[in-house]
Amino acid sequence: MTIKNLPKYVSEIDGELWFTELDRGNMRLSYRINKILAVEESKFQHVMMLDLADFGPTLVLDGCLQSSTVCGHIYNEMIVHVPMLSHPDPKRVLIIGGGDCGAAREALKYPNAVIDMVEIDEAVMRLSIEHLPVVSGGPEFDSRLKFMVEDGFAHVAKTKNEYDVIVVDSSDPDGPAASLFNDEFYRNLKAAMKPGGIMTCMSESPILYAGYLRSIRKTLASIFDVVETYWFSTLDYPGGIFSLTYASDGTKPLAAGKTFDKDAKYINASILGGCFDLPPFVQHILAGESDFVRAEDFPGR
Amino acid sequence: MTIKNLPKYVSEIDGELWFTELDRGNMRLSYRINKILAVEESKFQHVMMLDLADFGPTLVLDGCLQSSTVCGHIYNEMIVHVPMLSHPDPKRVLIIGGGDCGAAREALKYPNAVIDMVEIDEAVMRLSIEHLPVVSGGPEFDSRLKFMVEDGFAHVAKTKNEYDVIVVDSSDPDGPAASLFNDEFYRNLKAAMKPGGIMTCMSESPILYAGYLRSIRKTLASIFDVVETYWFSTLDYPGGIFSLTYASDGTKPLAAGKTFDKDAKYINASILGGCFDLPPFVQHILAGESDFVRAEDFPGR
Repeated sequence: MTIKNLPKYVSEIDGELWFTELDRGNMRLSYRINKILAVEESKFQHVMMLDLADFGPTLVLDGCLQSSTVCGHIYNEMIVHVPMLSHPDPKRVLIIGGGDCGAAREALKYPNAVIDMVEIDEAVMRLSIEHLPVVSGGPEFDSRLKFMVEDGFAHVAKTKNEYDVIVVDSSDPDGPAASLFNDEFYRNLKAAMKPGGIMTCMSESPILYAGYLRSIRKTLASIFDVVETYWFSTLDYPGGIFSLTYASDGTKPLAAGKTFDKDAKYINASILGGCFDLPPFVQHILAGESDFVRAEDFPGR
Repeated sequence: MTIKNLPKYVSEIDGELWFTELDRGNMRLSYRINKILAVEESKFQHVMMLDLADFGPTLVLDGCLQSSTVCGHIYNEMIVHVPMLSHPDPKRVLIIGGGDCGAAREALKYPNAVIDMVEIDEAVMRLSIEHLPVVSGGPEFDSRLKFMVEDGFAHVAKTKNEYDVIVVDSSDPDGPAASLFNDEFYRNLKAAMKPGGIMTCMSESPILYAGYLRSIRKTLASIFDVVETYWFSTLDYPGGIFSLTYASDGTKPLAAGKTFDKDAKYINASILGGCFDLPPFVQHILAGESDFVRAEDFPGR
């Protein structure tokens, strides 16, 4: 039996459905699908919710795996708790993007925090709340969280001196999140922060996207006093070793002496203690000194 | 142009060559090939050395990526330095398998160590020495290392009270390494150790192969007093988060108070300090308590 009218990024192999993600023309990652839960062409992107054999219900945007039931918490915990623990008293929090709602859920674990979440695509939020409850938490949210279906760039541009912590939980730079990766955006972001404010952003696999990571660090270093990259390990993204970047005007990461006392699935004291200590070969790649990452194979670097 | 007589596990897509690894029928990982460096059907397995776009020269056995130029050091450092640092004075070391020669190379960083490496397949060693020098170190080896082309099971069965540290650097349990995954092998291994001896073995991704990891831990716990699983992050294997298991009759891991002073690309003090501290969700999966890893999707668990 051949199944007709398959969604984009889905194909049939020997009677089974597979979702395939193409990464930079160098890797093809295919995942067996138990069930297609939802497919929508939103105003901004192609949105799928797929129940994958290894990962359970999983959010896929423009053919890229974004957040799975088994591992979605890893990214959300790391992008939120690191700045929240670094700030002495984070009261006003902004999440840009974060459509799987997992970052908002982590930020709500701080009882004094009031959170704005600005996501451009309501379809992503709606489908994550319905089909990805292990990550999103489902339909019940605290009144301290305000959802705003709005362009993150525009929201930041009109906001001044408002937030203690800003989490840039975007998708890749080549989709609807493109405007969240330039100079102007980060200058506006700084202006939207209160004194002592902190931001974190997704900065890709330091191995597969070293050139991108170097470039975002350079941009941030031209705007903020403190720029530090930290890492974690996930199954959701190609590359295994993934990075986030922290920036502030003086507040050092995790230096506030606060103990982590939240319920978490990935973070423990060792992970927080070690995440800014990049493995030596990753430091070499970042510095462009690696002797085995060959420039000719990696035009993006 | 269609290329004829492609090796097993290699296919052509839009004029480019791709290597594809199938994992448990649930994932297909395809890597673009720059160049096929060597293909051999050895007495034991299908051996390829492929120059992959992201990974550089890479060893592939029976269609499974084993060790790449970019990441091969991660596994080798973790499987060797953890037991070597845990033992107060490791003089006699046995490496079983380890055909990429990277584990032997790490063990040679301890000047008092004399190392036997027992690899069943000379083709793997030969091709790694020739094509994978960043991992293997190339053709120059210290006289403290003795290569033995021999079955690891048989070598261990005939050896008594000989080794301080034994590293079981095998491939997956369904190939020529099958005999390295049973009760009898580990009982013989214990008998081949000196008092205070330590062993480490590959124990797969704790997320994708939780059932396997639980089973190897159970086997080891029936033989050794101390059994502890530790983790690292690599791009070489599906699952991102990968595990190794440590066993001894009383010697606790990394409790000897020794400082790590070797040249390394992955290991630093934070990684050694945190590697036995599994993320909470991994602990839950190991204990069979996870609320989101659904038994029906994972027949192996």
